[in-house]
Amino acid sequence: MTDPESQGRPGAGLSRRGLLGLALGAGAAGVAVGVGGAALVARATDPRAASPADTHPFFGEHPSGITTEVQDHLHFAAFDVMDTTSRDELIELLQDWSYAASRMMLGLEVSASGAIGGSPDAPPDDTGEALGLPASNLTITVGFGPTLFRTDEGADRFGLADQAPPALAMLPPFLGDDLDPGHSGGDLCIQACADDPQVAVHAVRNLSRIAFGRARLRWSQLGFGRTSRTSAQQQTPRNLFGFKDGTANLLATDEQALAEHVWVSTEDGPAWLAGGSYLVARKIAMKIETWDRVRLAEQEQITGRTKGSGAPLSGGDEFTPPDFAAAWGSGMPTIDPASHVARAHPDANGGIRMLRRGYNYVDGNTALGRLDAGLFFLAYVRSPERFITVQRSVATDLMMEYLLTIGSGIWAVPPAPAEGSFIGAALFA
Amino acid sequence: MTDPESQGRPGAGLSRRGLLGLALGAGAAGVAVGVGGAALVARATDPRAASPADTHPFFGEHPSGITTEVQDHLHFAAFDVMDTTSRDELIELLQDWSYAASRMMLGLEVSASGAIGGSPDAPPDDTGEALGLPASNLTITVGFGPTLFRTDEGADRFGLADQAPPALAMLPPFLGDDLDPGHSGGDLCIQACADDPQVAVHAVRNLSRIAFGRARLRWSQLGFGRTSRTSAQQQTPRNLFGFKDGTANLLATDEQALAEHVWVSTEDGPAWLAGGSYLVARKIAMKIETWDRVRLAEQEQITGRTKGSGAPLSGGDEFTPPDFAAAWGSGMPTIDPASHVARAHPDANGGIRMLRRGYNYVDGNTALGRLDAGLFFLAYVRSPERFITVQRSVATDLMMEYLLTIGSGIWAVPPAPAEGSFIGAALFA
Repeated sequence: MTDPESQGRPGAGLSRRGLLGLALGAGAAGVAVGVGGAALVARATDPRAASPADTHPFFGEHPSGITTEVQDHLHFAAFDVMDTTSRDELIELLQDWSYAASRMMLGLEVSASGAIGGSPDAPPDDTGEALGLPASNLTITVGFGPTLFRTDEGADRFGLADQAPPALAMLPPFLGDDLDPGHSGGDLCIQACADDPQVAVHAVRNLSRIAFGRARLRWSQLGFGRTSRTSAQQQTPRNLFGFKDGTANLLATDEQALAEHVWVSTEDGPAWLAGGSYLVARKIAMKIETWDRVRLAEQEQITGRTKGSGAPLSGGDEFTPPDFAAAWGSGMPTIDPASHVARAHPDANGGIRMLRRGYNYVDGNTALGRLDAGLFFLAYVRSPERFITVQRSVATDLMMEYLLTIGSGIWAVPPAPAEGSFIGAALFA
Repeated sequence: MTDPESQGRPGAGLSRRGLLGLALGAGAAGVAVGVGGAALVARATDPRAASPADTHPFFGEHPSGITTEVQDHLHFAAFDVMDTTSRDELIELLQDWSYAASRMMLGLEVSASGAIGGSPDAPPDDTGEALGLPASNLTITVGFGPTLFRTDEGADRFGLADQAPPALAMLPPFLGDDLDPGHSGGDLCIQACADDPQVAVHAVRNLSRIAFGRARLRWSQLGFGRTSRTSAQQQTPRNLFGFKDGTANLLATDEQALAEHVWVSTEDGPAWLAGGSYLVARKIAMKIETWDRVRLAEQEQITGRTKGSGAPLSGGDEFTPPDFAAAWGSGMPTIDPASHVARAHPDANGGIRMLRRGYNYVDGNTALGRLDAGLFFLAYVRSPERFITVQRSVATDLMMEYLLTIGSGIWAVPPAPAEGSFIGAALFA
């Protein structure tokens, strides 16, 4: 690709109001934006930027960031549309986000004038910390929460209540929940994944900035050490319990399984969501100091897999299917029926599978000197009840003694916009 | 290297008590440790592990992690020796840390039995989340805080007060300080840097665990996007103000400058610290939303450099020395004397230079929906007053309006232990 601007160029359906608004705020209307020539700065001219090898499509069918080979770093952010009740302003926000996201996923700055190409007398459009960095496989995936359609108080702020997916509702309480409202919910969410945390942070920061005056950051989470894989080429990583996590995840190549378990179909409804999915986020604190004092054999019993290879306790290697009928000479099953692998397995859940995209997190430490750490669990499912079914099954498994879910959210993720259109356009048609 | 165990093998001076203690705690004394054969597990046998290309020496002259080419990820932790006043227990802690650190820096687990090689009836020595990961250029650098030598109340808990470096004291207050005691100080510190955050987190977690019953985690910080470089081959990265940071940093190859500015000499005293350094940590919150509304020209005036190339405003490229005498036609200096580059420059500070090793951080967001983000500044200096001099100079520079220092600490970092010895051995001799 010789001209990164020529691929996936934001089209006529995309607004620049948010960016203009930022410039206007500094009293320099129209000066900072739309400048050509010098506007193509470092990221655009960097030979590494926007190479097909480290970029993913923003426009298309399914959104990037779901089946995309899992990147190592996450910045997740939930937003509330607090500062406006205008449907037009919500549409403009999604257009502005689409414009900026489509550029950043190509390794470009949020606008043509970017961090240094505008007027010196205006604040830059782009905050600049990703200048010179490659696209880093950045994906930006946006979701719509239940409260976007109808607030907890029942208000239909944006005339969207009729379009709400009937199944999109706050998740029911589960055993092991101790939810912090400050780490739960949100009218909108952004999942930014990249090989470089600076690129993911840059994306969330600039999209937050573009949202100014319309939506406000409600909560956010950084993660590392992806605890899943979506490609057979990826090694299965380990969670902070030291076990491989995501061995049985759905792979991007398994289109039949994705159609069955992940993508909302035209028959599922509503129509605007077909080709999209439901995203469930769960912030799961791990009692790691307690876990670390558990005997190895018990850790493996709880998990249902060996700690070394990740093989099921019924034998074989990591990818050998667990044999839940296998038993010791004593008659005791080799895989405890209350183990995590048994309770999470499709066999225990009517065949349900989820596409997982979790990340480890460490948020410093508690006042007691314990690491404030765990798993930021992200899963994509074709319908919310699929997650609910599996969560009810694992909520009483042996591992739950060492877990506490402190944050939770659900969002409907619309399909990727068509070229030149914007995120969720069909919802507003 | 065919046998990673043969290089830098922990010697007779290193204790195993902490690890034994963990096993003893489970009532399985002597079973989980010292097992040969099966004990050399994944990390040791992984062909990528312990290759010279991604390991650094734990034993030697100067500690690794100071001039080492700056890795992309940081986990920093400060500890208080809360649970013992025994000098012998402190020595044993440092021996245990040395044993485990020397192994982890080779890509090995914390002990020979590790995460899966011990008895199934004991908790594993190693927590396991780094199994299968390469050494990732991990460096573990340990420092001694003022309170290790004498508590704030004046207690000499470990008989070390006589050995305290006279200059090792809590830093004086600076303009722009708003210090959180929960993010300041600490009897001991560990700086773990690695290419992979999971490897750095694994190191701090396991060293915290080994400290159990002796020292307790006081505060900790994750960082990414190194804001400095110690090798001419490294690109200068950008901080969250979007500017290149660390352009003029000391390089590992400049041994004369390191001797002048970083390493404590035998004449500086005390003798046990010769070859070591002083580490200053400052958690600097950036008012990024405010900064982002500042005009580009003003951002550059405040910094004293251009945002694009990082060249000084007096002209040239990034590495051109700033010309503080250069002036516009009007007579105004091209580099504002109150700019950050002017105030931090050796010319303004009697020639003082520091070796910087800062990292960007994002700790989620505030209740106001602003990113809780900034710079975790780490600097190594030959004496604390060198940092104090520079800090007093920059504390009134133009950038300080956008900064708030919320955490602070200082530690004396002893030289690297001789082969088979332990961190700070000379302090206890």
